Amino acid sequence: MQFHKNGFHPGDPRFADPQDRVIPPPIKRPLPAEVDVMIVGCGPAGLNLAAQLSKFPKIRTCIADMKDDRLLVGQADGMACRTLEMFQAYGFADQIIQEAYGVNEVTFWKPNPQAPTEIMRSDRIQDVEDDLSEMPHVIINQARVHDMFLDVMRQGPAKIEPFYSRRLAGLSVDRSEPDYPVSLTFERAVTHSQTSKTLETVRTRYVVGCDGARSTVRQAIGRELVGDALNQAWGVMDVLVVTDFPDIRLKAVIHSNNEGNMLIIPREGGYMVRLYIELDKLKENQRISRDDISSDYLIAAAKRIIAPYDLDVKEVAWWSVYEIGQRLTTAFDDSEPGRAPRVFLAGDACHTHSPKAGQGLNTSVNDTWNLGWKLAHVLDGRAPAELLLSYSSERQDIARQLIDFDRELARMFSAKPKSPDNPDGVDPAEFQRYFTQFGRFTAGTAIRYQPSALVGEGKHQDLAKGQVLGMRFHSAPVIRLADAKPMQLGHCIEADGRWHVFAFAGQAAPMSSDCGIRALCNVLDGHEASPLRRHTPEGSDIDAVIDLRAVFQTPHRDMRLETLHPLLVPPKGRYGLKDYEKVFCPDFKGARHIYDMRGIDRARGCLIVVRPDQYVAEILPLDDHEGLSRFFARVLKTV
Amino acid sequence: MQFHKNGFHPGDPRFADPQDRVIPPPIKRPLPAEVDVMIVGCGPAGLNLAAQLSKFPKIRTCIADMKDDRLLVGQADGMACRTLEMFQAYGFADQIIQEAYGVNEVTFWKPNPQAPTEIMRSDRIQDVEDDLSEMPHVIINQARVHDMFLDVMRQGPAKIEPFYSRRLAGLSVDRSEPDYPVSLTFERAVTHSQTSKTLETVRTRYVVGCDGARSTVRQAIGRELVGDALNQAWGVMDVLVVTDFPDIRLKAVIHSNNEGNMLIIPREGGYMVRLYIELDKLKENQRISRDDISSDYLIAAAKRIIAPYDLDVKEVAWWSVYEIGQRLTTAFDDSEPGRAPRVFLAGDACHTHSPKAGQGLNTSVNDTWNLGWKLAHVLDGRAPAELLLSYSSERQDIARQLIDFDRELARMFSAKPKSPDNPDGVDPAEFQRYFTQFGRFTAGTAIRYQPSALVGEGKHQDLAKGQVLGMRFHSAPVIRLADAKPMQLGHCIEADGRWHVFAFAGQAAPMSSDCGIRALCNVLDGHEASPLRRHTPEGSDIDAVIDLRAVFQTPHRDMRLETLHPLLVPPKGRYGLKDYEKVFCPDFKGARHIYDMRGIDRARGCLIVVRPDQYVAEILPLDDHEGLSRFFARVLKTV
Ligand SMILES: Cc1cc2nc3c(=O)[nH]c(=O)nc-3n(C[C@H](O)[C@H](O)[C@H](O)COP(=O)(O)OP(=O)(O)OC[C@H]3O[C@@H](n4cnc5c(N)ncnc54)[C@H](O)[C@@H]3O)c2cc1C
Ligand SMILES: Cc1cc2nc3c(=O)[nH]c(=O)nc-3n(C[C@H](O)[C@H](O)[C@H](O)COP(=O)(O)OP(=O)(O)OC[C@H]3O[C@@H](n4cnc5c(N)ncnc54)[C@H](O)[C@@H]3O)c2cc1C
Repeated sequence: MQFHKNGFHPGDPRFADPQDRVIPPPIKRPLPAEVDVMIVGCGPAGLNLAAQLSKFPKIRTCIADMKDDRLLVGQADGMACRTLEMFQAYGFADQIIQEAYGVNEVTFWKPNPQAPTEIMRSDRIQDVEDDLSEMPHVIINQARVHDMFLDVMRQGPAKIEPFYSRRLAGLSVDRSEPDYPVSLTFERAVTHSQTSKTLETVRTRYVVGCDGARSTVRQAIGRELVGDALNQAWGVMDVLVVTDFPDIRLKAVIHSNNEGNMLIIPREGGYMVRLYIELDKLKENQRISRDDISSDYLIAAAKRIIAPYDLDVKEVAWWSVYEIGQRLTTAFDDSEPGRAPRVFLAGDACHTHSPKAGQGLNTSVNDTWNLGWKLAHVLDGRAPAELLLSYSSERQDIARQLIDFDRELARMFSAKPKSPDNPDGVDPAEFQRYFTQFGRFTAGTAIRYQPSALVGEGKHQDLAKGQVLGMRFHSAPVIRLADAKPMQLGHCIEADGRWHVFAFAGQAAPMSSDCGIRALCNVLDGHEASPLRRHTPEGSDIDAVIDLRAVFQTPHRDMRLETLHPLLVPPKGRYGLKDYEKVFCPDFKGARHIYDMRGIDRARGCLIVVRPDQYVAEILPLDDHEGLSRFFARVLKTV
Repeated sequence: MQFHKNGFHPGDPRFADPQDRVIPPPIKRPLPAEVDVMIVGCGPAGLNLAAQLSKFPKIRTCIADMKDDRLLVGQADGMACRTLEMFQAYGFADQIIQEAYGVNEVTFWKPNPQAPTEIMRSDRIQDVEDDLSEMPHVIINQARVHDMFLDVMRQGPAKIEPFYSRRLAGLSVDRSEPDYPVSLTFERAVTHSQTSKTLETVRTRYVVGCDGARSTVRQAIGRELVGDALNQAWGVMDVLVVTDFPDIRLKAVIHSNNEGNMLIIPREGGYMVRLYIELDKLKENQRISRDDISSDYLIAAAKRIIAPYDLDVKEVAWWSVYEIGQRLTTAFDDSEPGRAPRVFLAGDACHTHSPKAGQGLNTSVNDTWNLGWKLAHVLDGRAPAELLLSYSSERQDIARQLIDFDRELARMFSAKPKSPDNPDGVDPAEFQRYFTQFGRFTAGTAIRYQPSALVGEGKHQDLAKGQVLGMRFHSAPVIRLADAKPMQLGHCIEADGRWHVFAFAGQAAPMSSDCGIRALCNVLDGHEASPLRRHTPEGSDIDAVIDLRAVFQTPHRDMRLETLHPLLVPPKGRYGLKDYEKVFCPDFKGARHIYDMRGIDRARGCLIVVRPDQYVAEILPLDDHEGLSRFFARVLKTV
C-alpha cells in the first residue's frame, strides 16, 4: 500500500479523505462504580489486556486514560515477529502486514577508509533468519496497532470502549475488603481546555497499571524503576524526505566517523522514514542542551551523518527526543510473601528500554499477553488466585534479560567504529555479528519462561526438540484433514484463553488398535481422571477449556475421516454441530514435513501442552495420560 | 475463522454480538438531480462499478436500489480465482480469504455398483491447477462481498453511499440533449410498509443497468434476453447440519442412481454448507410443483440423495428455488451503428447462468470491471467516447462463451450416471475430466478479449508466451528492488484506472549502455512522442495515466539502485517524493524465475502493456518505442 505521498496524515489509510481517517472518540460516559479489572492507560500494554479480556463477557473490564482520545501519531513502530504471531491470534495480523513496511534486509554503513568523512555500505544481511517465525518483522505506527486492539475490544463479547480524559489521582488497597479491595480515584477533565475537574471513584478486584514510564500506579504501590541512571537521549523523527541515499527503503544502521550514529527505519506507505539519531554521540561542538533541540537541529545532524548523500526533509510528521534508560522494577505486582497480588504493573510502567532494539512496545504487549489469560482464568473460576503470582515471576525475568540484551546492543551501537584512531571502538563486523546472533531476541522468539507449575522441567524435551519448553509453540505448515486446507498449525491458537493439547501421532496406523491417539481419545473421552472432564464446566463445549488437536504423519488423502475418534470431530454449540478443524496431516506438497521441522519423534509421537498465550507448557509421551491429568490438575480447578 | 456455531447470523463475523454485525442503512437523502453515471441496482455488478468509480473524485456517480438496505443473506457464494485477483486490486482479497472457505479439493460420488441405492466416492481431485493464479478459489456469502465493495465506495475519494428504497420506474433518452441525455424516474417508498410513493428524477450522462435478471433498464432500451427458454430449477439451501458424510467440508459432486444429483459447497465459518439439489432430476414420483416446494421438501430430497449417509439439518439459514436458463442479450448497450451508447447493461441484466459453474456473480463483477475504467477514461477526458463501444463487444463475446460452457457443464451434471441400465448416461469419469479441463473457465482465467484497438494482434506474443494477449496479466513472484520485498508482480496493479507498462529487461547489464530499459526510459522521459508526455495531464504525477515498471534478470543484491534511470524512481506528489516501488528482480530464493514461469524471452526481454482492468493489451519488443507510442495514441487522447 502506498500513502503519505502528499504529506502525512494519521489513521486508516484506506480512507482517501484524511478527515474520515479519524474516528471520533466514544461518547463520554461516567466510569462504572465497580468492576473486576481496572486498566489504567491506553498504551499497547493496556489495550492488549482489554482486547484479551473483551473475549470474556462475564468479566467486567474498564480501561481509562488521561488522554482526550486515542493515539494518532508517533511513539514506537517496530513490530517483532512474535508480536505479529500474537496479532494473528487476534485475527488482525494480515491487515497489519498489508499496511506495514516489511523488514526484509538490513544494511550496515561505516566510514569509508578512503574518505573517512564519507560513509560506505559495509554489509547487507537478511533481517529475520529462515523459519524463525511464519510471521514477518514489520514497521508500522503504534497508533495503528492501537486501532486494531480497539476494534477487537469493541467487537468482542464484552464490548469494551476506553474512557478518556481520566487521570488516575489516587489508588488505595484495603485488604480487609474481600471483593473489591482496590479503590481508584480519577480526575475528569470536563473539556480539553477547562481545568475544573470532577472526581470519580472505581472499586475493583484487580488493577493493572499500564500507565507508562511515569506510572502513577507504580508509585502508589511503592515500586521503583531501578537500573541505569544514565539516560541516553535519542532524537527521533518521522519524515518525508528526498534523498539519493540508496538504502532509504531498507533498515540501515549508519556509523559515521565523527558525526554520530543513525538508524534509518523505512515506514508504512512507501514514502515516510523514521530516523533515530543518537544525541550523545554527536560531535562535541554540535551538542546542545535538551531543551534547545528542535527538529531542525535533528535534520542538520542527520545530514552530517549521511554525507556524502543528500537528505532533503520535506515534512516532519512527528519528532521527539526520546530519553530513556534501561530500567526495571523489582516486581511487577504488589504481592508480598503471604499476600496475594491485587495490583499489577505492565509495560513501560515496570521496564524501559532504549529504542534501538525496538523492545518497548513489543515487551509491553507481551506482558499483558502473559497476564490476560491468567486474570481471566481466576475471575472465571477456572484457576485459583495463586496463578496470578506467576505473572511477575515470569515477566520480570524476561524483562531483565531483554534489558541486558538492550544494554549490550546500545553499547555496541553507540561505540565509535574501530579504526586506527579509535582502537577501542567496535568493529562494525562485530556489531553485525551480534546483531545477527541476537536476531531471535529482537524477533521476540527467544523468550523462555522458566520451569514452574506452568512450564514442565523438560524430561521429555527430546520427543519434540524444536518445541522448546517455556518458549512459544513454533508453528509449521500442515494440511487440515477435513477440507485439505494448507495452513499454519499455530494459527489454530486464538486469543481466547483456551489451553491446547497437540497430540502428534507415532508410527502406528491412524486409529488402528495400536494408535496412540486413539488410546488418548478413549481416555480423555471416558476416564473420570480425564482433564477434559475434570476442568470443563457442565454445559460448555468439550474444547472450551482444553482444546485437543491431532497431527498424523499420513498424507491427508490416505486418511479416512470417518474412522476418527468422535473426540476429534466433537459436537459443539446448541445444535451439536461437528467441529471439523481438529485434525492435521503434514504438507507433502510445498513445505517441509512438520515432524522434521520441529524435531518431533516419528516413532513415538508426543503430546505438547500449549498455554493460552502460545507458550509450550509440557511435553509428554503420547501415552502419558496420567502425566497430562497431573499437569492440568496442578493449574486448573476441578469443576 | 469459525462462526455460526450456535446458528446462522449475517454480517461481519468479527463482531461477537450478532446485533452489531448489521450496520444501519445510510440516512435517507434525496437523489441528486444531475450526475455523470447513474447505476441502477446494488448487486455485485452495480457495487463493483460504484467501487471503481469511487476512485475518481471528479466523476459524480450515483447508485440506487429498490431494496431497503444492503443484502444480508443468500444468493451466490463462489468466488473464482480471477474475482479474487480483482478483490486484490481493491485491497480486500486478504480479508475475504481469511473469512471464507477455501476450495482445495473436489470429490466425486457415484452410485455404488455393489449397492446401487448407495453412493460411494469415485474420485478426489485438486480444485485449482498449480500456478493458475496466485489467488485461491473461495466460498463466501455474496453479502460479505457487497460489504467490502461498500467499504471501498465509502473510503474512496468520491465517497459513494447507495440510495436505497428507490425503484426505477422509467428511463428515457433524449439524444438531442448533449450533456445529460438520459432521464430516470425513481419511485421512493416512504417507509418499508407504506405504499405511497414520491417520484424523483435524475438526469445523467450515462446509465448502467445492473438491475438483475428482470432488468427494467434492459426493457427500457428494448434489449431482450434470448436463449434457452427451458429453465432448470435448482433447490438451494444454506444449512447447519450434522452428518456422517465424510466429505461435508469438501466441495462434493454427488450423482445418485435414482434420487437425483446434489452439489455440496462448504461455507465460511466451519459449520455451514450449501446444498444444491437439481429439482428436475428428482425421481418422477417425488417431483412437485414449484409453488409447493418447501425447505422440508429439499431436505427430504437431500437425505435420499446422500444415502446411506445421514443428514440432520439443524437450521436453514437461507433457501430458495433458483430457476434460471442460460440466456443472453444481443448487445450490452443501447448503441446502434452511428449512435454512441448512453445506456449499458451489466451482470444478470444481460446474461444468466445456471448456478453450478458459479458464473453469475463472477461474470457480473467482471462486466463492470471492464466497463468501469472505460467510463472513467471518457468522463475524465482521457479517452474519446468511442472507447465505450468496446464494452459490449468484449463482454458480450465472453458471456456467450461462458454460457456455452455452462450449458455443457449443466448437461453433464444433469445426465444420469452411465451404467448398464443407463447406457446413454454420462460416465462420471468423463464429467470429471470435463470438470478439470474447464477449471480455467470456472476460475475465470480463461477469459480472452479479441484483438481490437485495446488488444494487439499478437505479432510479438513469442516474447512473452505466458502472458497471452487479451488475457489477464498473469502475476508471478518477484523481489522489489528498493526494499527487498518478496511479492507478486501483479499486485502492483490497483483498481485505480491506470495503464501499466512492464518493461522486462533483456540480457544486457542493467543500465549499461546496451540496456534496453535505459534506452526506453530515455525515450519516455525526453522524447516528444513519449506516451507519458503525450497523455499525462500537466501537473499530474508522471505515472498518473501510464505506470512504467521494470523487471530485471539480475539478483536484487547485485543491482545498484543509484544507477537507475530517474524515471524508475520518479518524483511524485506535492513534495516530489520518490516512488521506490517501480523496479523488480526475480525471486531466486523460494520461487521460480519469473522469466521462466511466464515465458519471457531472456535474450531480448519485452514490453507488456496492461490495461487498467489487468488484461494484456500489447506485447512489443523492448526497443519498439514507436509501437508503444502508436498503441497509446490509438486509445488515449493527447493532452
Ligand atoms: C513520547 C514517546 C515516544 C516514544 N518513542 C519511541 C520510539 O521512538 N521508539 C520506540 O521503540 N518506543 C518509543 N516509545 C516507547 C513505546 O511507545 C512504549 O514502550 C510503549 O508504548 C509502551 O507501552 P505501554 O502501554 O506500557 O505505555 P504507554 O504507551 O506509555 O501508555 C501509557 C498510557 O498511560 C496513560 N497514563 C499515564 N499516566 C496516567 C494516569 N495517571 N492516569 C491515566 N492515564 C495515564 C498515558 O496517557 C498513556 O496513554 C515512546 C514512548 C513515548 C511515550
Ligand atoms: C434470489 C437469488 C438467488 C440466487 N441464488 C444463487 C445461487 O444460489 N448461486 C449462484 O451462483 N447465484 C445465485 N444467484 C445469482 C447471483 O446472485 C447473481 O448472478 C448475481 O447477484 C448477479 O449480480 P447482478 O449485480 O448482476 O444482479 P443482482 O445481484 O440480481 O442485483 C440486482 C439488483 O438490482 C435491484 N433492482 C432490480 N430492479 C430494480 C429496479 N427497477 N429499481 C431499482 N433496483 C432494482 C435489485 O434489488 C438487486 O439488488 C441468485 C440470485 C438471486 C436474485
